[in-house]
Amino acid sequence: MLSDRLVRVVQLFSRLPGVGEKTAQRYALAMLAADEAVPRDLGRALTELRDFVRPCDVCGHVADVITQEDGSKTALCSICKDRRRDPRLLCIVHRVQDLLAIERSGAMRGRYHVLGRLLSPLDGVTRDELGLEKLFVRFRATEEPIEEVVVATPPSVDGEATALLLSRELAPLGVSVSRIASGVPHGGDLEFADQVTLGRAIEHRRRFG
Amino acid sequence: MLSDRLVRVVQLFSRLPGVGEKTAQRYALAMLAADEAVPRDLGRALTELRDFVRPCDVCGHVADVITQEDGSKTALCSICKDRRRDPRLLCIVHRVQDLLAIERSGAMRGRYHVLGRLLSPLDGVTRDELGLEKLFVRFRATEEPIEEVVVATPPSVDGEATALLLSRELAPLGVSVSRIASGVPHGGDLEFADQVTLGRAIEHRRRFG
Repeated sequence: MLSDRLVRVVQLFSRLPGVGEKTAQRYALAMLAADEAVPRDLGRALTELRDFVRPCDVCGHVADVITQEDGSKTALCSICKDRRRDPRLLCIVHRVQDLLAIERSGAMRGRYHVLGRLLSPLDGVTRDELGLEKLFVRFRATEEPIEEVVVATPPSVDGEATALLLSRELAPLGVSVSRIASGVPHGGDLEFADQVTLGRAIEHRRRFG
Repeated sequence: MLSDRLVRVVQLFSRLPGVGEKTAQRYALAMLAADEAVPRDLGRALTELRDFVRPCDVCGHVADVITQEDGSKTALCSICKDRRRDPRLLCIVHRVQDLLAIERSGAMRGRYHVLGRLLSPLDGVTRDELGLEKLFVRFRATEEPIEEVVVATPPSVDGEATALLLSRELAPLGVSVSRIASGVPHGGDLEFADQVTLGRAIEHRRRFG
């Protein structure tokens, strides 16, 4: 019923996260109805994207690719480049989106490490798939040693399992490892908080003063 | 915080229907995390899309572009090409998605006309923006004249207004014009049907036999 080329675009759109066939078809048909420049501009930007942008060599955040004099390509993100960041403090997150959310809070003055995935026995993601070697390299650097680690993986089953693993793996390195607090969100209503959240909020209560 | 090129991809993704900045950012970051082939394949498919696919010259459905011997380009969809379709029966729809839904029902043995938009005074879409000239051309064709029109615009305010306009515009042409039925959907529960739907279901009741 639809052109083969359009069907191909539908298939490719449905590889986007959370996009099913219906939504993909909607996107593809919109590309056909829009101004000609719309699919062309998005098409070109996507075709070139990976030549110019890739995860930061150090932390995994988004970074521009730089071609060195010897032809090799490197990528260092704006945070790893920033000399004003405290090199002794490291925040470990799951995804770039989480890094951006923490940056918006303005509460992290150190640097980051983006894992990219979480420990998930059900999805077959074991310790070896986490790419922790890249993380440990940062601890072996003698210049500007990391002294404190904040594990900011999400308060989900996978996020907690990953946090626990990290705390164990990092313990022998002699750094202070902490976990972000979990509880009732600011402005949240206790009546509508789920049991686990409320249980944690009480368990992790803080004494005044 | 993000690379300029990635920000551009976010902006372009947010032109997709129903995609806000957060979702666009999620798509863009997925393009960075995926296999290199994913953004490249989608990029190429989109860049080329409009060279090979465009709305059918006759009805507005999706069609492959054919380059003629004189270099001009034409596009005729699979339904307009299909000689087994009843040329006397025409079904007018809003979008290609609606055409596909009717095709799935198997209830339309005629051809289609895709308007692309609905009358919408609030959005500034007046009669002149509906491109009705392309529709009237089909009625002026002397070969295989259209005898019956089914208006299948949605049962919304804009859809009803467009249907009413079409019935008035088509009346002088001496064709039979009907509107798809509106009522309680098959398998639907009367208890949860809205007032307008239920009112219509009763108003448009059909006598047995």
